[in-house]
Amino acid sequence: MKFASLKSKHKDGRLVLVSRDAAYAVEVGDIAPHLIDALERWDDVQPPLQAVYESLNAGGAEGSFAFDPAQCVAPLPRSPQWLDGSAFLNHSNLMDKAFNKPAPPLVETVPMMYQGASDDFLGPHNEVALPRVEDGIDFEGEFGVITGPVPMGVDAVSALACVRLLVQINDWSLRALGPHEMKTGFGFLQAKPSTAFAPVAVTPDELGDAWRDGRVQMRLHVHWNGQRFGEPHGGEMNFHFGQLIAHAARSRRLTAGCIVGSGTVSNVARSAGSACIAEQRVIEIIDSGKTHTGFMQFGDSVRMQACSADGVPGPFGVIDQRVVEYHP
Amino acid sequence: MKFASLKSKHKDGRLVLVSRDAAYAVEVGDIAPHLIDALERWDDVQPPLQAVYESLNAGGAEGSFAFDPAQCVAPLPRSPQWLDGSAFLNHSNLMDKAFNKPAPPLVETVPMMYQGASDDFLGPHNEVALPRVEDGIDFEGEFGVITGPVPMGVDAVSALACVRLLVQINDWSLRALGPHEMKTGFGFLQAKPSTAFAPVAVTPDELGDAWRDGRVQMRLHVHWNGQRFGEPHGGEMNFHFGQLIAHAARSRRLTAGCIVGSGTVSNVARSAGSACIAEQRVIEIIDSGKTHTGFMQFGDSVRMQACSADGVPGPFGVIDQRVVEYHP
Repeated sequence: MKFASLKSKHKDGRLVLVSRDAAYAVEVGDIAPHLIDALERWDDVQPPLQAVYESLNAGGAEGSFAFDPAQCVAPLPRSPQWLDGSAFLNHSNLMDKAFNKPAPPLVETVPMMYQGASDDFLGPHNEVALPRVEDGIDFEGEFGVITGPVPMGVDAVSALACVRLLVQINDWSLRALGPHEMKTGFGFLQAKPSTAFAPVAVTPDELGDAWRDGRVQMRLHVHWNGQRFGEPHGGEMNFHFGQLIAHAARSRRLTAGCIVGSGTVSNVARSAGSACIAEQRVIEIIDSGKTHTGFMQFGDSVRMQACSADGVPGPFGVIDQRVVEYHP
Repeated sequence: MKFASLKSKHKDGRLVLVSRDAAYAVEVGDIAPHLIDALERWDDVQPPLQAVYESLNAGGAEGSFAFDPAQCVAPLPRSPQWLDGSAFLNHSNLMDKAFNKPAPPLVETVPMMYQGASDDFLGPHNEVALPRVEDGIDFEGEFGVITGPVPMGVDAVSALACVRLLVQINDWSLRALGPHEMKTGFGFLQAKPSTAFAPVAVTPDELGDAWRDGRVQMRLHVHWNGQRFGEPHGGEMNFHFGQLIAHAARSRRLTAGCIVGSGTVSNVARSAGSACIAEQRVIEIIDSGKTHTGFMQFGDSVRMQACSADGVPGPFGVIDQRVVEYHP
């Protein structure tokens, strides 16, 4: 199934099912008014939602209408928790190498993960209002999962079975603020403004063989101001999503609707490019001792879309956002 | 006004007003069913809530009943964000001195703050189920504020005007897991299981002169297994709550119901004792080169209550919790 949330007066949006070809949508408020409700009552609502989805795909769903991603908020406009890993070690290895830092302890066996704000997510076409270009405005293309309820102390295999939906993420970052926050040991806070999501959240079966080994086996195509920036592959995650969820649930239970992110998609092969500017800049430092690429300016745009190996667009839809100056 | 939330099938509990003498409560579901609703519609609900509160205190509120803190969940059983500062620099100074670490950068001018999980708070008498004593189970007595909506980029003075309610907090911590998470730079995650709250959240006017300079001017009396552990004073915060809120809102807006904590209450005067075991242990290291005090065992209890300078209990009520072994 493919889910989206349309703009609404309600903070959780209006839940719709989206057809497999992304041409049509239909409201399912009589089954679950918001995606969070569906996640909290998944076993009960899954069968009737599936029935509507099948009739939508067959062209027979009553009240269906043309699906317009521009009318979407994030699939979950707010969620119980947003936990973002750093599961592509190539990315952290490059960062450490450029700044001549030792690798963090246990980096290959214990996932790194920060807790982000989850009360105010951005939709796929929302403008991104930020206070200062001097903060080093950067995008971060990622994949993520939305979980059902996860018990404390779950193992990685059982954790993978708690995955309900897959999502595509732009984890906006302010790079000038990150190093100080990392040095305090308290982690990212000001360096991570509101995170954005592609319009469509999908059940894992929608990806077919591209959901394999607990990873999204697709390339994330990133364009900055219309220029190709990279298309790294999601299959290179050093920790799979089950491992990330189990890490998050080590000393707490996760309530339904928790979102766990992969961190910036990053590949060892240089030809894949990057999914964030910071990584491109550290490659420049490693190669030439200095950066050539700046961060984003007000008015800049970024576009992200996952595609299969043969270039066919994936089911998540497109993130296409423009950065603007925040005016109080 | 004094608010509490009673146990309910609903995740947000059932909102009640509590009388000034804490003897009686009355449901106010016809005005706002949950505290989060009241915070989201504060200007509209404040006058009718105030009217009920006055009649409750005068003994004339219809449907009032004896207030039983044992029936309480946290005032906000879940909230949009939980951001915990470390505003008592005496605490971090002691930690750094014991472990011979340099002070974090800008420690005297920029608050340290981590983002915690906010989807699953504990009530004042909930058992605290944790997986292993080897994780170094510790309490942390704190004060906190609950905000209304806060715009991005707010200054510290305006931020203080966004404070709606004051709360008393036990920020449960797993000390054996903290140092690794601090070294990664990604901040606390596994080291911070669910946070607990005293039963009553109060409007600042309820504290009279004990809400002054953006600080709770009360002593937090902490007892561990019935033994006095400390009663440090909340007035020694190096950053006031307006500064903490402004720090949190530097690159994001905060939605109504956001909770900002002070960090462990800690005083320069040794005679005040401590509000967490970790601080007692680092004092022992500084004094004698080794620790004498262990962390908590399963079956241990901790009690926290704020009192005025002359020992009169404050309006928040009592946190009294017992640690038990978590069984999946």
